[in-house]
Amino acid sequence: MSQRITIALDAMGGDRAPDMVIEGASFAQKKMPGELEFIFYGDEERISPILEKFPQLAEQASIVHTPEYVRNEDKPSMVLRRGRNTSMNLAIKAVSEGHADCVVSAGNTGALMVLSRLNLKTLEGIDRPAIAAAMPTTVGQTIVLDLGANVDASPDHLVQFALLGSLYARCVLGVKEPSIGLVNVGSEEQKGRDAIKKAAQILQDSHIPGHFFGFIEGDDIPKGTVDVAVTDGFTGNVLLKASEGVAKQMYQMLRGVIEHSTMAKIGYLFARPALRRFKKKMDPRRYNGAMFLGLKGVCVKSHGGTDSYGFYRAIKSASQMVREGFYDQVSKELKNTPTYATSENDRSVTETQSNGGMSS
Amino acid sequence: MSQRITIALDAMGGDRAPDMVIEGASFAQKKMPGELEFIFYGDEERISPILEKFPQLAEQASIVHTPEYVRNEDKPSMVLRRGRNTSMNLAIKAVSEGHADCVVSAGNTGALMVLSRLNLKTLEGIDRPAIAAAMPTTVGQTIVLDLGANVDASPDHLVQFALLGSLYARCVLGVKEPSIGLVNVGSEEQKGRDAIKKAAQILQDSHIPGHFFGFIEGDDIPKGTVDVAVTDGFTGNVLLKASEGVAKQMYQMLRGVIEHSTMAKIGYLFARPALRRFKKKMDPRRYNGAMFLGLKGVCVKSHGGTDSYGFYRAIKSASQMVREGFYDQVSKELKNTPTYATSENDRSVTETQSNGGMSS
Repeated sequence: MSQRITIALDAMGGDRAPDMVIEGASFAQKKMPGELEFIFYGDEERISPILEKFPQLAEQASIVHTPEYVRNEDKPSMVLRRGRNTSMNLAIKAVSEGHADCVVSAGNTGALMVLSRLNLKTLEGIDRPAIAAAMPTTVGQTIVLDLGANVDASPDHLVQFALLGSLYARCVLGVKEPSIGLVNVGSEEQKGRDAIKKAAQILQDSHIPGHFFGFIEGDDIPKGTVDVAVTDGFTGNVLLKASEGVAKQMYQMLRGVIEHSTMAKIGYLFARPALRRFKKKMDPRRYNGAMFLGLKGVCVKSHGGTDSYGFYRAIKSASQMVREGFYDQVSKELKNTPTYATSENDRSVTETQSNGGMSS
Repeated sequence: MSQRITIALDAMGGDRAPDMVIEGASFAQKKMPGELEFIFYGDEERISPILEKFPQLAEQASIVHTPEYVRNEDKPSMVLRRGRNTSMNLAIKAVSEGHADCVVSAGNTGALMVLSRLNLKTLEGIDRPAIAAAMPTTVGQTIVLDLGANVDASPDHLVQFALLGSLYARCVLGVKEPSIGLVNVGSEEQKGRDAIKKAAQILQDSHIPGHFFGFIEGDDIPKGTVDVAVTDGFTGNVLLKASEGVAKQMYQMLRGVIEHSTMAKIGYLFARPALRRFKKKMDPRRYNGAMFLGLKGVCVKSHGGTDSYGFYRAIKSASQMVREGFYDQVSKELKNTPTYATSENDRSVTETQSNGGMSS
């Protein structure tokens, strides 16, 4: 455990970059003293003066000047063609070339996905990487994937997501026998999309690490029914954003009613310490850091709008994956696991109509 | 406005039926005095003694004895074959045969959908009915559809859902120019599934009632960005359940922190009236009642676990649709609107892979 982890940081990604990135790294250094080293990729003229304000961090950090960076509005396809000299691409390359153990960026998600796929490559046995993140539940947290890397998913893709999510829960979160649920529109076997029903059949018969719980519904994630919730990237993305949105809406409305009532304001003064604990528990920054799973290297995407505390959490996630040898463990597991793919399943990526998708 | 609305009620549907159904009807009668008449379908021996407790309601109500009823665990396909004499089927038939103006049931959703499709038929120009409901937002409410009638949706289906949702918002909620959003994984044109992109093209060019806003994301629903949010039944179902689940989770966690702190308990006493207003605003019973849109008749599905207040809200939704002539208005609009369908779109029900589904 004495070996230091080198983290490549895309200093130009995120709404408040590069300040937020450097402050986040400084935060991480204080929280994990002596464990981390940083390489900042980006505009040296902008990074240097900020880094000077953190002399302790500067001792464990270096800057690699890059003339370009990826913008939020850049299309992934364009970045793939012309993004070679961007801070994002060079930070990822640091991992593929062995200069760093992992990469963290708060930049354009689509660009980060195509560039990390290009440089890091997908693991053997994995067709497509998935984006995974922890979501807060009543009893703890649930790893949800895919959150948007693939708008559709074949049965095999879903099975691979289940494997990746389960191994993440085991290696990084220390859940010995993670329970895995497939997001569907009902818990009955006959319900839902064909691709999901097929994935369930494969998961039932396979010896995937963890325990296959079966189908789960949208409310099973906040309930914390399973450790790992598997879905396609379209559903996962909508689910994640809607959940975050509802949580935010409730805060706002709660604040609204309290601010409009003097009695409630007085009450708030009494309840403040308790409410702060509540707020801390649900703080989206705590759950910041979406893991790109299925690559030959650790790449974590931070929310673009986060602050230095949120960015520190993303750095923490990345360093934990390195520390726990996530990549090695997944590689080993993939070798030990029989191929789930059958030619029949391979072709069922496009989903067929079904009438059974009603809620009861 | 003096004409009474006759409502056929499936007295046997719902966790607390028939009590909850009869109490809900009594509630509705008190809230809308002189406006409603009821026909209860179900086991007369069970309904009669409860109805006797509500003499005022009994004056405006009749009972049609049915020997059978649909159970929650019954498969829709089975109900379709053998459910002829169930309270649910006969209540729906009351509408198709002109004995009642609308039907409300808190029973099995899948069964209610297949039976109402069979008896009421879909409107000309509508391929598939959709389930729609109002979801609370920071600024009011948004109509979301489809919530689970169809696990997949072609571009034409999505366009039809948009039309139905927009007309509902206009006729029943009184929104003059409803804004319509298509749920996607990003607001940029190049993102998302092909079916959604095609639907957006059709909506941009068509003269659908209301205003096409464009793509929206999961958090746009709690934000209240649009009046009508259109999606396939799989995504809609997961979105609805996740949103309800997160709201519930936050209540529970909030209650948990307050109960564990004496100071917070004192604070709660002061803030209670304000918190009650907040709770009332977000009360899921207020939003109870999922409308089956696209049928030649008004059918509303109540949540199975609701109470009499929630059931009253479902009755209210149904009676509003009748009062505002929703069915006539949709029929008229469908005649005036050019067919959106092209043979190309018809075939694109199965969605193809795309790599552009990342969040930014």
